[in-house]
Amino acid sequence: MSKYVIGLDYGTLSGRAVVVDVKDGRQLASAVYEYPHAVMDRCLPDGTPLPADWALQHPADYIEVLENTLPQVVEKAGINKEDIIALGLDFTSSTVMPVDAKGMPLCFMEGFQHEKHAYVKLWKHHGAQEQADRMTRVAQERNEPWLENYGGKVSSEWALPKLLEVMEEAPQVYAAMDEWIEALDWVSFQLTGKLIRSYCAAGYKFLWNKHTGFPSEDYFAAVHPDFARVMHEKVKAPIQELVSVAAPVTDEMAERLNLPKGLPVCVGILDAHAGVPAVGMTKPGQLMIVMGTSACFMALSDNGAPVKGICGALEDGILPGYFCYEAGQSCMGDHYAWLTKNAVPREYFAEAEKRGMHIQTYLTELADKLRPGESGLLALDWWNGNRSVLVDFDLTGMILGLTLQTRAEEIYRALIEATAYGSRMIVETFRESGVEVNELFATGGISQKNAMAMQIYADVLNMPVRIAGSDQGPALGSAILAAAAVGKEKGGYDGHLEAIRAMAQTEQKIYMPIAENVKVYEQLFSEYRKLHDYFGRGENDVMKRLKKLRGK
Amino acid sequence: MSKYVIGLDYGTLSGRAVVVDVKDGRQLASAVYEYPHAVMDRCLPDGTPLPADWALQHPADYIEVLENTLPQVVEKAGINKEDIIALGLDFTSSTVMPVDAKGMPLCFMEGFQHEKHAYVKLWKHHGAQEQADRMTRVAQERNEPWLENYGGKVSSEWALPKLLEVMEEAPQVYAAMDEWIEALDWVSFQLTGKLIRSYCAAGYKFLWNKHTGFPSEDYFAAVHPDFARVMHEKVKAPIQELVSVAAPVTDEMAERLNLPKGLPVCVGILDAHAGVPAVGMTKPGQLMIVMGTSACFMALSDNGAPVKGICGALEDGILPGYFCYEAGQSCMGDHYAWLTKNAVPREYFAEAEKRGMHIQTYLTELADKLRPGESGLLALDWWNGNRSVLVDFDLTGMILGLTLQTRAEEIYRALIEATAYGSRMIVETFRESGVEVNELFATGGISQKNAMAMQIYADVLNMPVRIAGSDQGPALGSAILAAAAVGKEKGGYDGHLEAIRAMAQTEQKIYMPIAENVKVYEQLFSEYRKLHDYFGRGENDVMKRLKKLRGK
Repeated sequence: MSKYVIGLDYGTLSGRAVVVDVKDGRQLASAVYEYPHAVMDRCLPDGTPLPADWALQHPADYIEVLENTLPQVVEKAGINKEDIIALGLDFTSSTVMPVDAKGMPLCFMEGFQHEKHAYVKLWKHHGAQEQADRMTRVAQERNEPWLENYGGKVSSEWALPKLLEVMEEAPQVYAAMDEWIEALDWVSFQLTGKLIRSYCAAGYKFLWNKHTGFPSEDYFAAVHPDFARVMHEKVKAPIQELVSVAAPVTDEMAERLNLPKGLPVCVGILDAHAGVPAVGMTKPGQLMIVMGTSACFMALSDNGAPVKGICGALEDGILPGYFCYEAGQSCMGDHYAWLTKNAVPREYFAEAEKRGMHIQTYLTELADKLRPGESGLLALDWWNGNRSVLVDFDLTGMILGLTLQTRAEEIYRALIEATAYGSRMIVETFRESGVEVNELFATGGISQKNAMAMQIYADVLNMPVRIAGSDQGPALGSAILAAAAVGKEKGGYDGHLEAIRAMAQTEQKIYMPIAENVKVYEQLFSEYRKLHDYFGRGENDVMKRLKKLRGK
Repeated sequence: MSKYVIGLDYGTLSGRAVVVDVKDGRQLASAVYEYPHAVMDRCLPDGTPLPADWALQHPADYIEVLENTLPQVVEKAGINKEDIIALGLDFTSSTVMPVDAKGMPLCFMEGFQHEKHAYVKLWKHHGAQEQADRMTRVAQERNEPWLENYGGKVSSEWALPKLLEVMEEAPQVYAAMDEWIEALDWVSFQLTGKLIRSYCAAGYKFLWNKHTGFPSEDYFAAVHPDFARVMHEKVKAPIQELVSVAAPVTDEMAERLNLPKGLPVCVGILDAHAGVPAVGMTKPGQLMIVMGTSACFMALSDNGAPVKGICGALEDGILPGYFCYEAGQSCMGDHYAWLTKNAVPREYFAEAEKRGMHIQTYLTELADKLRPGESGLLALDWWNGNRSVLVDFDLTGMILGLTLQTRAEEIYRALIEATAYGSRMIVETFRESGVEVNELFATGGISQKNAMAMQIYADVLNMPVRIAGSDQGPALGSAILAAAAVGKEKGGYDGHLEAIRAMAQTEQKIYMPIAENVKVYEQLFSEYRKLHDYFGRGENDVMKRLKKLRGK
């Protein structure tokens, strides 16, 4: 008699649910729901304009995902719902919001609907750069020991700079807030009625670790006197370890979502991290890149050495027993989407439509005919700042080599190459710090859809690229961890390694590096690296100065 | 009884003729004809592919311009053709071609129609960069005295590197060629049957001056042994001074083109240079920028000091009695056209069409709402290399500050700003060399059509910008010089100053700098300058290395 688990994955623009078979991880059904408010980066729903660098979401959208995917996916799977043994979930992060003592988002409340700080700050909200810089500076000055675990910098994408931003810019929101909570944990709370914090989110986004806890009151006081007791006042809910059950679903939600009564909900995990079990990673030296709108890097290590510009050394951060590093590129598919939205001639759209192709498929077909170096273009992939290894969101994109002959497909290919060079910077930084990278898994939409891009990655990184994971990678990973969380007795597995070995969707295709391309990309990467350092490491801070002139 | 002159102006994409009144320069009629072959930069008419950086033209198009403008413009003017007293002409340069002993272009001949080197090499043909670099290096090594008059570099846009390119890459064309002749002089030859060389073209594009003539045989031999006697073999026709009559039109051509019998044809001038009399420049310290697909700078000086990266110190080069400097930006309107062709979203075209606007008018409307610095973008205006002050066509365009919010109108404005910064580099280089620039005239299409661009120029240069010249500036200038060439006795003027004062179309509008914009642009220009020097003066030659990788 088969048993099933549900994986629930919240991305940047949509949420999706999958039902998978506990036996082999086979996906029986999936359902996707796009957030009606998508990303609010220009204005609030009422028209209140937002500053540059802002990116908000609406929590009502997350509830709609539950309502519009869970009943459907169970029905589509054609199974007896009582055979579902657990639900796991994952979310983008740090995507974080203020709630009151009842767990109600402040933006739902009278008086806060026009207040931008009352909404969910999406991971790519970069309004708290000044706060992040200050938190870094103070930590450096005080020699805070935890700083090196975060690559030496506090990122504006994390939870605490965003919270400080609220305190400093909207004190009334700060005062009214009872908890500053990850959307991940808030959705779990909606399902179970129990407010806990995921170990993974706490560790990677709230500066917490199991040995020393959060940073000290003294540290927070040095950042801002009123911030001293922030952890006692606004970050109170208990932290719970991964691969464990948070609580059963409430009866009310079970009924509303057509789930089995008392279904165990597993402790949530960050979305990229959920990909690790999904691709079958179980060994040190393995690196996974999740390729979507942005790119996340997850590396397993038994080493724990600090790596400059890369977060890691969080023990048990993804899989118990290993140190798990997290790196990222703030922008991957978003680059390509920016191009198609803003800088592709209309004739290309006409041709793509005529041939019934997606515009990016058409661009890929044209770009695939170019040999490496043929366009003469070189780009820095910083349209959305640089997460790793510079951890600096005031950096911006650059492209050079433009001529009157330059065409859209050449720029498209240059952007793909740029993200590949950015990936290589991360891999080289790992290696320079003594963290091995022997095996590379690629997962996420782009890895499945764009063979040219994957060949470029293999050539630039000079490593085989193993395409792995289902097309719903993180959702599968959440489901795997949920199967391990409930244990064998309930129809799952005892231990996550056993669950991964049975359920992961391992390697489906390998892209091998092509020697003559590797040679050209070696040269191009050294040019990239030189410009990366020139613009990114202080030799010429023109990008920051321009951003300042641009104003807020 | 009124008298009239015809001005004939050959641009990059079309030729035009005007009829003007000798009394006051008033334009009675004009006619334009677009070259059927336009610019051949991808392939020859037979499909033979062209290397990158090539730009050819077809000489048959120039004859069609005569046939399709001269009879029409005389008819449109509604005058008695016998009252036309002279014809003056100007041309882009160095736009140059091989002809046989009868003046027949080699590309017209059996056996040469598929040979790319037999066609006209347009001014912006950049295939001879290697030859230009070599000519510069040898001149530096030999301390050639003429080099400093050319800004210290031989440009690949000039006649002799292009000729050397023919010799080295197509010896059969070189052997068959009797003269290597400017298209300017070839059209004059078509009209008059007399082959002479314009003083202006010889001086600015063939390394000639009236005191020392051409460079020595020793110099040419050092460049390439077979090139030693090039001036005796391929550049033989006599040089004739400006503001003089070359010869009367032939009877055959007078009849074919409906011109008065024996009409004096004045010695031709380069197109940008023809703008100087058209805007009424007569004094040292005056600078004119001709704003078209590219931008030409003409400065009058009584000084003659060498200016690095700027051609000049050619005595009598435009107006007898003064030193005339020539600088240029290889790309101005071409940048903007590149953008609209390649990188503007289709919705913008739809909106522009709906409102019956040209796409650039629509982009201007959007870009005009941005304040200086608001886009956060900074570009280097090198899509077509850099003519002044770096004289390096292996440089390429760059844009930085790109984010996911960047829109087409922001890039459009950044390109306009970049060309303004490039102009300021030229002005500052003049001043640093002791050549005064007190007064700025702008002429050419963009100066008439784009008020936003002109305000940006005034703000970036922190000088009033005086819009001058007719919308057919160079054609008017050619006509003015023709009126002076024939003299008062024939109904014209004795002396060019008198002709200019009577006929020039001086200042129609002044754009004054706006103090708060000047302040922001001061900062932006210092960023531009830093990147200009970083990429352009050898600190990081990435653009050249990329171009090399790109291959030919």
